[in-house]
Amino acid sequence: MLTRIDHIGIACFDLDKTVEFYRATYGFEVFHSEVNEEQGVREAMLKINETSDGGASYLQLLEPTREDSAVGKWLAKNGEGVHHIAFGTADVDGDSEAIRGKGVRVLYDEPRKGSMGSRITFLHPKDCHGVLTELVTAAPPSETDH
Amino acid sequence: MLTRIDHIGIACFDLDKTVEFYRATYGFEVFHSEVNEEQGVREAMLKINETSDGGASYLQLLEPTREDSAVGKWLAKNGEGVHHIAFGTADVDGDSEAIRGKGVRVLYDEPRKGSMGSRITFLHPKDCHGVLTELVTAAPPSETDH
Repeated sequence: MLTRIDHIGIACFDLDKTVEFYRATYGFEVFHSEVNEEQGVREAMLKINETSDGGASYLQLLEPTREDSAVGKWLAKNGEGVHHIAFGTADVDGDSEAIRGKGVRVLYDEPRKGSMGSRITFLHPKDCHGVLTELVTAAPPSETDH
Repeated sequence: MLTRIDHIGIACFDLDKTVEFYRATYGFEVFHSEVNEEQGVREAMLKINETSDGGASYLQLLEPTREDSAVGKWLAKNGEGVHHIAFGTADVDGDSEAIRGKGVRVLYDEPRKGSMGSRITFLHPKDCHGVLTELVTAAPPSETDH
């Protein structure tokens, strides 16, 4: 069951400048940053609020590490903006299989590594009214290293 | 101060079909629906979670009521997808003035009527790294009629 807006993924050309925009304009601070080589992104997570399911909602700022990554190609086509939205669940495996069973294309056979030790998958935007949609199960707190 | 992700605004061609997609795929239900003639949209709010500031996070599904509305023009250019993101604040007037003072263009001179009796304004996407950004102050609970 999807129980929160986990994050909004925002693609940008320059992560440092974009982080500075969010800090200077709104006071949002970087909670965590990492490079995800599999996804081909350098990213910063800005924690905005905690959520009623015991999780939190973040902005995820994404700069591609290579032009041929999914985010790199998306940026070249669309320019900066909202790249995807993500819902949090305690069971990304079960939920993604259930959603696949409803005829929505799930992009990975098995969930992959996301931010902060999470496990993630994506749903095809053409099956989701134009919205690239991610499902996330956060790492247990003890495994979170930020 | 911005204290939550209030909603993600998603533009769609057919509100009823899109509501049904979110219900059938994820189990999300309509919390509130209304027509906002000033904005030129028919909309449905799907409540996803409550937030640590006493508010909530929603998906806001938007179908234009006229082609020349902002959302209608955006849809004709971009197709379905994420139209804007919104942050919640207790003081949309003060925050929008402070942000205007930092050189970010605020689209309204004064906040206007948003969903569920809220007061809203928008920041220019070109000043926000490509993200059309809304600021929202929710109506006091007694004034919310959903």
